[in-house]
Amino acid sequence: MNGTSVRWTKRHVLDVEGWSREEILMLMEQARHMEDLMGRPIKKVPALRGKLAVNLFFENSTRTRVSFELAEKMLSADVVNWSSSGSSAAKGETLRDTAWTLEAMGADIVVIRHGAVGAAQYLAKKLKRAVVMNAGDGAHAHPTQCLLDLYTAWKHLGDLEGRKVAIVGDVEHSRVARSDVIGFKTMGCQVVLSGPSTLMPHQIGHLNVTYERDVRKALEGAHVIYLLRIQRERQRDGLFPSIDEYHRFWGATEELISSFSRDVLVMHPGPINRGVEIESSVADGENSVILEQVRSGVAVRMALLYLCAGGAA
Amino acid sequence: MNGTSVRWTKRHVLDVEGWSREEILMLMEQARHMEDLMGRPIKKVPALRGKLAVNLFFENSTRTRVSFELAEKMLSADVVNWSSSGSSAAKGETLRDTAWTLEAMGADIVVIRHGAVGAAQYLAKKLKRAVVMNAGDGAHAHPTQCLLDLYTAWKHLGDLEGRKVAIVGDVEHSRVARSDVIGFKTMGCQVVLSGPSTLMPHQIGHLNVTYERDVRKALEGAHVIYLLRIQRERQRDGLFPSIDEYHRFWGATEELISSFSRDVLVMHPGPINRGVEIESSVADGENSVILEQVRSGVAVRMALLYLCAGGAA
Amino acid sequence: MNGTSVRWTKRHVLDVEGWSREEILMLMEQARHMEDLMGRPIKKVPALRGKLAVNLFFENSTRTRVSFELAEKMLSADVVNWSSSGSSAAKGETLRDTAWTLEAMGADIVVIRHGAVGAAQYLAKKLKRAVVMNAGDGAHAHPTQCLLDLYTAWKHLGDLEGRKVAIVGDVEHSRVARSDVIGFKTMGCQVVLSGPSTLMPHQIGHLNVTYERDVRKALEGAHVIYLLRIQRERQRDGLFPSIDEYHRFWGATEELISSFSRDVLVMHPGPINRGVEIESSVADGENSVILEQVRSGVAVRMALLYLCAGGAA
Repeated sequence: MNGTSVRWTKRHVLDVEGWSREEILMLMEQARHMEDLMGRPIKKVPALRGKLAVNLFFENSTRTRVSFELAEKMLSADVVNWSSSGSSAAKGETLRDTAWTLEAMGADIVVIRHGAVGAAQYLAKKLKRAVVMNAGDGAHAHPTQCLLDLYTAWKHLGDLEGRKVAIVGDVEHSRVARSDVIGFKTMGCQVVLSGPSTLMPHQIGHLNVTYERDVRKALEGAHVIYLLRIQRERQRDGLFPSIDEYHRFWGATEELISSFSRDVLVMHPGPINRGVEIESSVADGENSVILEQVRSGVAVRMALLYLCAGGAA
Repeated sequence: MNGTSVRWTKRHVLDVEGWSREEILMLMEQARHMEDLMGRPIKKVPALRGKLAVNLFFENSTRTRVSFELAEKMLSADVVNWSSSGSSAAKGETLRDTAWTLEAMGADIVVIRHGAVGAAQYLAKKLKRAVVMNAGDGAHAHPTQCLLDLYTAWKHLGDLEGRKVAIVGDVEHSRVARSDVIGFKTMGCQVVLSGPSTLMPHQIGHLNVTYERDVRKALEGAHVIYLLRIQRERQRDGLFPSIDEYHRFWGATEELISSFSRDVLVMHPGPINRGVEIESSVADGENSVILEQVRSGVAVRMALLYLCAGGAA
Repeated sequence: MNGTSVRWTKRHVLDVEGWSREEILMLMEQARHMEDLMGRPIKKVPALRGKLAVNLFFENSTRTRVSFELAEKMLSADVVNWSSSGSSAAKGETLRDTAWTLEAMGADIVVIRHGAVGAAQYLAKKLKRAVVMNAGDGAHAHPTQCLLDLYTAWKHLGDLEGRKVAIVGDVEHSRVARSDVIGFKTMGCQVVLSGPSTLMPHQIGHLNVTYERDVRKALEGAHVIYLLRIQRERQRDGLFPSIDEYHRFWGATEELISSFSRDVLVMHPGPINRGVEIESSVADGENSVILEQVRSGVAVRMALLYLCAGGAA
């Protein structure tokens, strides 16, 4: 189904760390086919017919769950949602036992969102047969978000080598930021972080990226500005700039965006806080590809499911 | 698929206000086909195969959600449920952004239940491609309930022109009542409201209906008595008759129903409060078409989905 | 599809009480076919295509719900989940009215989990057409759990006649224990109960089983040890041994299991409390068939759905 000579060897999608540029490009090509499919009147192919997908969400995330669920259904998988509330987890069952239970029931694909770092990796080790997709584990990784971000940028910019990406906001608590830094670096991008210093990870050097507190300096020459969601529940009194201050210093205002390259892509993992990290007119403006990211999410997840569980080579 | 010469032009189902008699009749004919389908051993047709339906419920309503979900599945659509708890809405996402997200994900049909008046209309304005079905917006409208009520009455009475319909109960807070008044009037019925005066809308005249406090007078010559659910949560101490008083003065008792036409249809949108607005023996009696309404609900929703999203002419 | 000459005559699955040995064996053969199907790359047959299954759960039970849902989907039924929270039940609707509503909507199969003894039986009486499957009613019965336990034991031991089964734990509050006692007795097993006397039913004699407080005596010569879940919420201060005491006296430790027959099957309905009623090494050890039970659960439920609702003879 694509022209590259790489063979797909990944069984699980746990983290983008360790993925090669070639693997990511192979995925991009596959995602493009899937996005074509989404545009057809009948959005359904039998690729995963007779396969069972379980969406195991220990944290609420309607957007991510629905994106996976739609991807699974367009590939004709049978889908079951397993949320933590009222489940065996509430009765003290361990994650290992839940995983084994799912596999014994016949699950071919397990999509997991969990608050604990490493939950997806752990599941992958415990399962003998099923494919595991990490839909976010603690503040650690959110690989499918990263891959859909790369796909969206790649569609607009082509080769990502040498592009500059500014990631702005609460990097410290963001699994999206961590995965995106790794992904964009793998594709050869220069990544600069911006935001309040209190929200930067302590070991930025380890990530081989730079930190520029002043968002205007961070944005100079950038091809992508990636805005992180400000999670109000993370704020501690006094330590953090107020919402107003955040918006004033790091918010993506029309004035800020228009002072830079006309072509800079404005990205955000959603859901957006209009008036906080992004001004409404920017979210809906010409530079914004936020809704394209949402669409890419379904296409990229379809491609991952197809490559890992669909028997493709 | 039917003998009328009208072409179906509606894209959304937002309110019955503005529907013509001919459009309603066209829907009735289509619903009759769908009800036939429900009686077959294999209750499934491929009309919406490869289409994505999202049920977006910001208020709990298992009955309405399940009715839509069954209708969607019998037409072979893929279905995803998006409820507000734990969703992006809880994280402060606007309805507009949720709508755009759904469309970007590929939704072809969005069924929305929302506490705010006008939510479905707003969604329909914001969406470029998807069909919107109003499953209830605040105290404003519940068009699919109205249409299933009309269908149920039409199946029993034939032409509704000149029929008398008595709507009894808490009209003030009822989107069902508002939609049903409009729907029955459109079909040429005479509508009379009854119930405590504190639960009547202030501008009854505007609806071109009459108010008759005494339910016995309201029922004289009626072909349909439509009982509204008494929502205990609406009651304010002192202002409202007690449940006992309500039952005594406006409850549909066997004695009340038997004093009128043998053929009067007893209708109720469900779920019923046995012993409050309706006596148990009346709910299960010969005049009751309450369960037929439930069945009609699935058939009418199938018909609406088919006409709006199935490419029918 | 099987070699027995019995015809399947059951319409509902309400309780194992009253089932004959022949009926259970017929089910076992059918379940074996279904388990074969679960091992194929495409785990789906059209047996229930165009049938509507509603999973009506008034108590949370993700495991049982998912097991039924997977079984329904592998047979190609359309599935709707109806949980009690936010449903009509919360608005005061009676179980009878919910049942009638489901049937009016077209449900062919209703799976019900309810806290009240007799809920499934009541539903079966009220429904005219739909098949009812009891997924647990109060402390009364859990027939599909019993049947999957029998199936698991039968696969390992062959003919169950004359086998000894020790059921250990909180028998008093366990619908699983009650159903399993009846099921294993029907198959000709000798059943002995063990556990704290405060957790034994008062009328053990009525069940025609023996009680042996000392788990070592209960296990002598046993082919199956069936461990019940200790439900912490059942404990009342003082009356019950502490978790530690329970584990010390009745917990399935490696030392306990290894002192008996090498071939004893260790069973548990799940989810397990590692370190309470079962030691971790036993749960994961060679004698444990706990995960096989989970797999059997899907196969047995598929077989029941097929036999009751699939038009098989």
